[in-house]
Amino acid sequence: MPEIALFGAGRIGRIHAGNIAAQPGFRLRYVVDVNAAAAGELAALHGASSTDVEQALADPAVTAVVIAASTDTHADLIARAARAGKAIFCEKPVATDLDGAQSCAVAVAAAGVPCMIGFQRRFDPTFAALKRRLDAGEIGAPEVVVLTSRDPGPPPLDYLKQSGGVFKDMLIHDFDVCRWLLADEIVDLYATGACLSANAKLAGDLDTAAVTLRSRQGRLCTINTSRHAAYGYDQRIEVLGAAGMLQAGNHRPTEVTASLADTVSTDVPEPFFLERYRRAYAEEMAYFAAILAGKTVAAPSLSDGIKALELAELATRSWREGRALSCSV
Amino acid sequence: MPEIALFGAGRIGRIHAGNIAAQPGFRLRYVVDVNAAAAGELAALHGASSTDVEQALADPAVTAVVIAASTDTHADLIARAARAGKAIFCEKPVATDLDGAQSCAVAVAAAGVPCMIGFQRRFDPTFAALKRRLDAGEIGAPEVVVLTSRDPGPPPLDYLKQSGGVFKDMLIHDFDVCRWLLADEIVDLYATGACLSANAKLAGDLDTAAVTLRSRQGRLCTINTSRHAAYGYDQRIEVLGAAGMLQAGNHRPTEVTASLADTVSTDVPEPFFLERYRRAYAEEMAYFAAILAGKTVAAPSLSDGIKALELAELATRSWREGRALSCSV
Amino acid sequence: MPEIALFGAGRIGRIHAGNIAAQPGFRLRYVVDVNAAAAGELAALHGASSTDVEQALADPAVTAVVIAASTDTHADLIARAARAGKAIFCEKPVATDLDGAQSCAVAVAAAGVPCMIGFQRRFDPTFAALKRRLDAGEIGAPEVVVLTSRDPGPPPLDYLKQSGGVFKDMLIHDFDVCRWLLADEIVDLYATGACLSANAKLAGDLDTAAVTLRSRQGRLCTINTSRHAAYGYDQRIEVLGAAGMLQAGNHRPTEVTASLADTVSTDVPEPFFLERYRRAYAEEMAYFAAILAGKTVAAPSLSDGIKALELAELATRSWREGRALSCSV
Amino acid sequence: MPEIALFGAGRIGRIHAGNIAAQPGFRLRYVVDVNAAAAGELAALHGASSTDVEQALADPAVTAVVIAASTDTHADLIARAARAGKAIFCEKPVATDLDGAQSCAVAVAAAGVPCMIGFQRRFDPTFAALKRRLDAGEIGAPEVVVLTSRDPGPPPLDYLKQSGGVFKDMLIHDFDVCRWLLADEIVDLYATGACLSANAKLAGDLDTAAVTLRSRQGRLCTINTSRHAAYGYDQRIEVLGAAGMLQAGNHRPTEVTASLADTVSTDVPEPFFLERYRRAYAEEMAYFAAILAGKTVAAPSLSDGIKALELAELATRSWREGRALSCSV
Repeated sequence: MPEIALFGAGRIGRIHAGNIAAQPGFRLRYVVDVNAAAAGELAALHGASSTDVEQALADPAVTAVVIAASTDTHADLIARAARAGKAIFCEKPVATDLDGAQSCAVAVAAAGVPCMIGFQRRFDPTFAALKRRLDAGEIGAPEVVVLTSRDPGPPPLDYLKQSGGVFKDMLIHDFDVCRWLLADEIVDLYATGACLSANAKLAGDLDTAAVTLRSRQGRLCTINTSRHAAYGYDQRIEVLGAAGMLQAGNHRPTEVTASLADTVSTDVPEPFFLERYRRAYAEEMAYFAAILAGKTVAAPSLSDGIKALELAELATRSWREGRALSCSV
Repeated sequence: MPEIALFGAGRIGRIHAGNIAAQPGFRLRYVVDVNAAAAGELAALHGASSTDVEQALADPAVTAVVIAASTDTHADLIARAARAGKAIFCEKPVATDLDGAQSCAVAVAAAGVPCMIGFQRRFDPTFAALKRRLDAGEIGAPEVVVLTSRDPGPPPLDYLKQSGGVFKDMLIHDFDVCRWLLADEIVDLYATGACLSANAKLAGDLDTAAVTLRSRQGRLCTINTSRHAAYGYDQRIEVLGAAGMLQAGNHRPTEVTASLADTVSTDVPEPFFLERYRRAYAEEMAYFAAILAGKTVAAPSLSDGIKALELAELATRSWREGRALSCSV
Repeated sequence: MPEIALFGAGRIGRIHAGNIAAQPGFRLRYVVDVNAAAAGELAALHGASSTDVEQALADPAVTAVVIAASTDTHADLIARAARAGKAIFCEKPVATDLDGAQSCAVAVAAAGVPCMIGFQRRFDPTFAALKRRLDAGEIGAPEVVVLTSRDPGPPPLDYLKQSGGVFKDMLIHDFDVCRWLLADEIVDLYATGACLSANAKLAGDLDTAAVTLRSRQGRLCTINTSRHAAYGYDQRIEVLGAAGMLQAGNHRPTEVTASLADTVSTDVPEPFFLERYRRAYAEEMAYFAAILAGKTVAAPSLSDGIKALELAELATRSWREGRALSCSV
Repeated sequence: MPEIALFGAGRIGRIHAGNIAAQPGFRLRYVVDVNAAAAGELAALHGASSTDVEQALADPAVTAVVIAASTDTHADLIARAARAGKAIFCEKPVATDLDGAQSCAVAVAAAGVPCMIGFQRRFDPTFAALKRRLDAGEIGAPEVVVLTSRDPGPPPLDYLKQSGGVFKDMLIHDFDVCRWLLADEIVDLYATGACLSANAKLAGDLDTAAVTLRSRQGRLCTINTSRHAAYGYDQRIEVLGAAGMLQAGNHRPTEVTASLADTVSTDVPEPFFLERYRRAYAEEMAYFAAILAGKTVAAPSLSDGIKALELAELATRSWREGRALSCSV
């Protein structure tokens, strides 16, 4: 039975801890965090121990690691876990920059360990069903992808300042979804946006953005993003194909409809990613278990993680330079 | 070209006048109303003349009559028009009671003229599409029909007092829709209801009712009605068949959706029958034109009108006696 | 920490076992089933033991029982558990007939133990939200309730023969929902139906039914039921109130919409009760935990269970006798 | 009573003829077309005469002209009608190129006649309701506009070759809608696309395009277009504002929903612009009547028509040059 070391006891670490504990055949052995109290508490909740990175990686009972620590530690932890021969699940993004990502990729390749990146949207039941139906040819070849990706409200200024910018912080998910849906590589992109809130201005960032991407086979993808959708977390996919269209809508807490004097109304979408992607997080951990069991290969792979990061960096440059840019690929 | 005499220059008469005028090949020749001013005004609007019943029926140029006068005149006008050899379109109900309806049916049969009853719901694009798809076998044999039929607000007390009661006044449409959808005759029914408003109490009537009908072939229909749906005019059909379900929803003025902090909302239904059934009224007049052109037969027929009236009277008795009743058929 | 004895290791017993195990503060101690192998397997899955009724009830560590055994054992198990001083959760229906239900009620009253009946629909997130909003006055006083309750396909003949008939077997849930929503008692009802399938005929039962109920305050409820909805499990509520309407729609597995040449389509509803009411079953066990913790009172209560059974028996008589019947209350 | 001369008896000319005839207070006096037979037939249908441009403009009874002839005649006809002192309604686009548009604008300004451009989408009931609610502040200031604009199938090669390209032919409507919704001028844009069909390739055109525009106040608009949406004519608007989102959906022929074994489906959208914008064409003619009656001013104005044409030319250049371009304004 795979025993798991979890790095990171914050919000996303706690989700992974719960899913590891609930995953048949998995055992959570260690929780590691710079905040020792948080690590201890989370470990206790699931019958695990808290420890440090060295000890966790040195323990031969540990088969796999789940990395959910702060972004600036990802690349280093991936490389160390790879050298220790552990299978790896790492939250997105792979690294804060492309150099870091590529160097840890060398370590993973050398070790030959599986490495899965936590783009959980691929495991959302609605998105996954859309992808299956697209691949099954229900609407023919995809021609246009439209992604809507809006947060309910902007994060605090401190977060924004160290976030790497909206393209790395938010749209990296959408870049992955774009590549995943099109099953094609991007050849050029154009990114633009607006800064409508005080905090985004202070952070030198955008809070509203639009990116247009073109793939090798001439398929288009447009992504539109905002940091503040007043009605909640808005996560939609639309794919136009040669024979029709598939759309993935938002999830709602209930299916109640109210017909009153002036409006017929339903619930707003689930409030944020913890609610919307609750099942996706569970499904991705089940997929990681299937990788460890040798039933499937790592996907989204480390390479997927690096390509999404490349697109995020390119989009950032495109916006700053005000022009369309080609991918170096 | 058929020239038409229109009896009745009230609300529904004005709708028919407009549709007669717009119907290619029809000419509105006369408008007749006890209110001579109203008749004259409506006639002038469409280039017709106002006159009285005798002269309208005596004019050989008049091929057909459209009866939209008050309910208590229907049976007499039908009989007189039939004896004058005119084709007849008459608003529902055929008569205020069954005896009147049956006696005018004798005159129509004797004259051999076509007689169409204005159950306009059969011509609503949504209801007609549902019926076509049902008849085409899309959901197999119908098993259960659920009709929702709610007015936006109760009529004034004066209207209620002379309306004949909710079953004759409102549900007569639903009894026709029930027979039309099932293409089967009713063998028994049970009607019950409630009186939740002051006016309905004063009129000795119900404002909320539920009727359950069973057909020869064992199919069920439930009708639920209210005089006051706060969100507008609610007109829905649901048919469960052996292989699926067809539902006819309400029509909305626009397709705008608003996502705000607390709700995602769309328009309420069209406010009342004039808006909801605007196209149905035009379509039924086009159908009457097709009857006159010999391209089709009268439907809903006078017999349909009488059967709906029988069910309305039976439902009234069922409610008053508190028991299920069999149809005499 | 409450330790629980579970009676019944069948389909519904396994659901309860999982929810008991997942309920913080609960411990599953015993599983009891006439099928000892099934009991043993289910017990092992959750770290419990299998035993017999006597031993389970004799163990002072057992605070509460969950009864999910066959219907004919419910009343006896409730009475014995009550006499042993255990808190009780019992699946619907309370008993196969009213006499049995009333005699176990005496035992429960004498023992003063809490007794909750498993009408899980009250805990469905969508239905519960509708009820909260209704009680909060969003649409004013309720006037008409329309319940749609359709199974995806008929059970086998053997099941049908011992089911007690469609009113006790299926509609008992709807009778409870009707009373719960209206917060009022029923004064009369009329039940009718049809038998459109071979098995229902052989079992002397209906497979399609319509029931109309009237409450003390003059509110109406219509229930329409079928044993075979080709499109899945159809569970809807509609409440018309003085100021609007609330509707509870079906739940769908995903939010994908496909626009093809001829149709725009979405998923069919969740296939059956295990999927649709998965969360409801978890929520009702959490509610039972709250009862045991003294935070709330048993609801649906044993009395609710008995009243639903009374309505089911009355509906059966109404159908057989072809007439409306008053409640004895 | 304004008498109207209609130039153009083709598909769109026939629609305008019907709406002129139905417009209270309007009289259709002349129909002019290079195809004399078509002009004669359309004139006869509405009790008008056919004539030539000179005579129509020389007749002092003619107050206004409606220009629906081929695009290459628009600018010349506008200029001549202006010099003749007629009020002008002209189909989009104003001219085949910007020079032509600007020169006729000089003539209109000199004559001081009203000139309305036929961007009928502004008069679609759904789009107009969205705009009213946006202007009323329902979602706060607009931040992002997403326009979906897809035709059901590509036009023939001959049409494509003389169409001026997808940006002038199709997206000119969307450029107008973008400016109208934002009530702001565009400062830069980026257009890209793909050519996925044989005919578009032969015509040297795109059949799939994406345009991103930025306005003075930093608002974004993305437009996505295709020449072949298998499910019909797809015309949607989405506006994200500071306090919510407004969406305008497609119109459907009926409100029937079918629940079958595998899908729950509704109608596809109205098939093409004649059906979708039937009411919009009538409303815009009513608006033109209001201009003639002095009740309102021309809108969309000739200046709106020119600005949309500028954006279409800029988008064409942006696509050809592969880079974002600033507006000269």
